[in-house]
Amino acid sequence: MQAKAIFYHAGCAVCVEAERTVAGALDPKRYQVEVVHLGTSKDRLREAEQAGVKSVPALVLDGVPLHINFGASIDALR
Amino acid sequence: MQAKAIFYHAGCAVCVEAERTVAGALDPKRYQVEVVHLGTSKDRLREAEQAGVKSVPALVLDGVPLHINFGASIDALR
Repeated sequence: MQAKAIFYHAGCAVCVEAERTVAGALDPKRYQVEVVHLGTSKDRLREAEQAGVKSVPALVLDGVPLHINFGASIDALR
Repeated sequence: MQAKAIFYHAGCAVCVEAERTVAGALDPKRYQVEVVHLGTSKDRLREAEQAGVKSVPALVLDGVPLHINFGASIDALR
């Protein structure tokens, strides 16, 4: 069964590069990757924060928030 | 052909969690993951810096340095 990996971003250049590399490099047999743009999907902000996301780009993998480089703080996206 | 992904760490708790999740989640068909402990393999520090690594844990994937959360700055490992 595939686990869910959620990649949160805000469309920034740092986000795009991280998505292209790490989100695209996950094992497709094990992970189903959902990409969420927090700048346009503000209704997902709360869920991201509850998962421990403090900045974007971030990947929540097996429930663990992984902040990848730094594009923008989540506070800047409200 | 497999591309090389290098995961640099320093044995810290943040590093261990990042290794367990992201390094273990890469597609094994596409990536061969090498794990380098920069605290003990100081001879690899220069190579890591040249790849753009500023802190650990970090993953260099397709030549792109991805800093994952924050364990220690590379300056602290000399």
